[in-house]
Amino acid sequence: MCDFTASKSYKKLLKLAKKPIDLTKNGVLTPKRIEKMRGSSLGFQLFYGTERVTDEVIHTLIELAKETDALEKMRDMQSGEVINKIEGFKSENRSVLHTAMRDFFEDKNPSKKAIQVSEKAYQELKKLKEFLEEIDKQDRYTDIIQVGIGGSDLGPRALYLALQTFSIKGRKAHFISNVDPDDTCKVLEGLDLSKCLVVVVSKSGSTLETLTNEEFVKKHFVQKGLDPKEHFIAVTGEKSPTDNPEKYLASFHIWDFVGGRYSATSMVGAVTLAFTLGIGNFKQVLLGASKMDKMALSHKLHENLPLLSALLGIWNRNFLHLPTVAIIPYSQALVRFTAHLQQCDMESNGKRIDKEGNFVDFETGPIIWGEPGTNGQHSFYQLIHQGTTVVPLEFIGFKNSQCKEDILIENTTSQEKLLANLFAQSIALAKGEKSKNPNKDFPGNRPNRILFASELNPETMGALLSYYENKVAFQGFIWGINSFDQEGVQLGKVLAKKIIQLFEDKRTGESKGKFPLAEMYLKHLEDF
Amino acid sequence: MCDFTASKSYKKLLKLAKKPIDLTKNGVLTPKRIEKMRGSSLGFQLFYGTERVTDEVIHTLIELAKETDALEKMRDMQSGEVINKIEGFKSENRSVLHTAMRDFFEDKNPSKKAIQVSEKAYQELKKLKEFLEEIDKQDRYTDIIQVGIGGSDLGPRALYLALQTFSIKGRKAHFISNVDPDDTCKVLEGLDLSKCLVVVVSKSGSTLETLTNEEFVKKHFVQKGLDPKEHFIAVTGEKSPTDNPEKYLASFHIWDFVGGRYSATSMVGAVTLAFTLGIGNFKQVLLGASKMDKMALSHKLHENLPLLSALLGIWNRNFLHLPTVAIIPYSQALVRFTAHLQQCDMESNGKRIDKEGNFVDFETGPIIWGEPGTNGQHSFYQLIHQGTTVVPLEFIGFKNSQCKEDILIENTTSQEKLLANLFAQSIALAKGEKSKNPNKDFPGNRPNRILFASELNPETMGALLSYYENKVAFQGFIWGINSFDQEGVQLGKVLAKKIIQLFEDKRTGESKGKFPLAEMYLKHLEDF
Repeated sequence: MCDFTASKSYKKLLKLAKKPIDLTKNGVLTPKRIEKMRGSSLGFQLFYGTERVTDEVIHTLIELAKETDALEKMRDMQSGEVINKIEGFKSENRSVLHTAMRDFFEDKNPSKKAIQVSEKAYQELKKLKEFLEEIDKQDRYTDIIQVGIGGSDLGPRALYLALQTFSIKGRKAHFISNVDPDDTCKVLEGLDLSKCLVVVVSKSGSTLETLTNEEFVKKHFVQKGLDPKEHFIAVTGEKSPTDNPEKYLASFHIWDFVGGRYSATSMVGAVTLAFTLGIGNFKQVLLGASKMDKMALSHKLHENLPLLSALLGIWNRNFLHLPTVAIIPYSQALVRFTAHLQQCDMESNGKRIDKEGNFVDFETGPIIWGEPGTNGQHSFYQLIHQGTTVVPLEFIGFKNSQCKEDILIENTTSQEKLLANLFAQSIALAKGEKSKNPNKDFPGNRPNRILFASELNPETMGALLSYYENKVAFQGFIWGINSFDQEGVQLGKVLAKKIIQLFEDKRTGESKGKFPLAEMYLKHLEDF
Repeated sequence: MCDFTASKSYKKLLKLAKKPIDLTKNGVLTPKRIEKMRGSSLGFQLFYGTERVTDEVIHTLIELAKETDALEKMRDMQSGEVINKIEGFKSENRSVLHTAMRDFFEDKNPSKKAIQVSEKAYQELKKLKEFLEEIDKQDRYTDIIQVGIGGSDLGPRALYLALQTFSIKGRKAHFISNVDPDDTCKVLEGLDLSKCLVVVVSKSGSTLETLTNEEFVKKHFVQKGLDPKEHFIAVTGEKSPTDNPEKYLASFHIWDFVGGRYSATSMVGAVTLAFTLGIGNFKQVLLGASKMDKMALSHKLHENLPLLSALLGIWNRNFLHLPTVAIIPYSQALVRFTAHLQQCDMESNGKRIDKEGNFVDFETGPIIWGEPGTNGQHSFYQLIHQGTTVVPLEFIGFKNSQCKEDILIENTTSQEKLLANLFAQSIALAKGEKSKNPNKDFPGNRPNRILFASELNPETMGALLSYYENKVAFQGFIWGINSFDQEGVQLGKVLAKKIIQLFEDKRTGESKGKFPLAEMYLKHLEDF
């Protein structure tokens, strides 16, 4: 194996990047190019003819993946090797086995560790199935409130919104995440708590926001004369402070080898998704994710879509030096999917040391942002077309809409108008347009690709989730960083605790001088 | 006046930026610095001690504002001078008078044009007031559906969500924007249309998404046996294709001197906000915005918060070369405010030519993104603390929550925990922390500032909106670009129309060969 910047292919890519292909030149962006530059598997196609790559770039990127052992590392991950670590320094020293949370179908990973973990996960799923069957019989609960933050919120919320069309009639989910008391107040407003389940999700069982909001919600139940024990479910790590079956209607487990941002297919997402969608639909999510996990092990680049996408991203990030990536689904159902990917990617790869603890001298994870199209077109696309900072785009599109209803106006449906806009943007960004009026001149060469499928349903949603999880992991493998810890969030937590203590001291009349910098802010609270 | 890069202060700032102040050094980030580096007006304070600036940098930035006539240009804008233009080229050639849409209070702008426009706007507001009084008498409508996209959606939606706590009991708003048919289907699901108003907002009266969705919604009304004429309201430009009082229950006007992204306080936002909040609350929004507009004319930098913020942003963008800005409200109510600012800023300043049509050789508008705190802390803050790309942050905070309910746990309220996290992040990002374990080492020097107020209510929301609108305008003035057109969105529209035509041709069996590149994508639709 070879370090990222020490690899031959890295040096070659640096050279190739000095003069990347000019997509605006006549004869470059042709139908043939669109036709040829395509990956495909599991009913997905990845069109990348509008990226600034040539065959030579693609071949060299494949070399890069080989030189950095990307596929071997993916196999190690899925097999349960201890890859979440920094050599020579205190670190988490864990396996990374979110893929085992859904490895219930064909071609199971044969490693002992993966099998063991997958069996544990399957037991939880069975427990959940039985619990939900009991719930169905009682016909007592219509709504579920998920209390969690970060990975215990973003993934489950994004998937719930994406698949709402497939919900059991009359069942709804709600989410409380922020410690801002207004979040809890507004979510609870108008809910009939007697019909609500509450699932409290915290792997550590010690997340400040979640424990605080749990108490806040509980207070509302008690005020209404309801017994929380009949409504509250826990999802947490075994033996965590909240792993207390006495206090909850049911408890489900997760483990430290599933990172929060990779936990949507574990019990973290399972309870809410299976309650609203039904266990059958939720299993379809798992099936789609598992199939894409297997595909991430393929040596054929044009069917290993997560690897293909990872490599294109590395080209844009490290060789074309583009600091951000906009992920733009042309699907309103994916309205919060980018927010989930923001965590998945930025918390995984927003790192500056390699796996041996050396500070890296290249760019790692980009800033991920975006809103659904066509909305974004009427918002930030001005900058994307004509701004001074180039933004690479990852479009996501589907042939069919979810709700089967559509309207034919002037001989086209809304879905067709949506797709027309998607393809138009992809072409316009790559090709640009010359004009004598500088304000109507479009520079083009704005790299973008389109991931396309037939429709957004539980199975394709699972596959899409896994596509991105594995893309992010591949980038981390190639950069040689640890994508599975998050030490960067600790300092803020420590200081927040100290300032919470200041607020407490103020209330209890204790002395000051513990944290002068923060006290200056607190002093100014009196101005308001 | 002097061009941005030709100014003396630009050159001096370049020099100062070679060695920006190191906030991690002992004795630099002191309580005294926090105390001193503060702007304040209208009940807001802007804490910027955690930016990488010195007194000298601030003085030079003030010089830059003077050399580029920033304040004079702001006065010109608010007075209705024709500033939306590119000299020597075909351009919109318009005044920019969103500030006149709310100039109904003290210190009215004395210019003839501004007075004239403000009077027109006031007439519309009066019309709206009378219309709503009539509605109140009928007691027939409980919900309003806003159909619009871009500026006709983002600002009104962000403000509605921000101020929902102040809504008239039982009144709700819903928003349809995307041409994706799933957007309309999902929003309409479960609504009792007989009690709904629909406000269709399109300045041009020709926005593809909005006209399509209007028909889609109308179809649902007709299917329910309801007469759209009794439910649909239009907000549009005078004499636009949809300016047809025959078809609507009421029509309200906007004008071409109010850009979509600056239109939240015009009739574009007024109908939905006044229906849900009451006209009194909506007028408070206007009052807050108008007060901040006046403040944007002040020569005292420490009370002209929009200018102060604009200058700090220019320091980060053009001298510290930071490509993005994260806007992070520690207030769940502002959940969609960053999405609004994304349009306001990126559509205004994502430009690459100056007002004379020359291509600029410096960076203009940054990429704007963000999610509310504390949620973001559990998502992308890893990259913000330890990533390789530095992200400057603009925090927004309030002393009090909106709902008066809170919970005391371990001697602090949730609101206090929220504030503790805000201040902790600001300090942690600036100061960092050294550690022998490289994974626990925080580089610090991550510039950030906090805009703080007592609470988020209609008046402070208006002021906050205007603060950002004017900040964006100031940056455009200083860069010498035109922040008020959006030619960059045209090419995509033109190509989309061509592809819509392809879909139509397919349906009607016409011949191909019109747009080979797009046809290749359409051909592949058959694969799915």
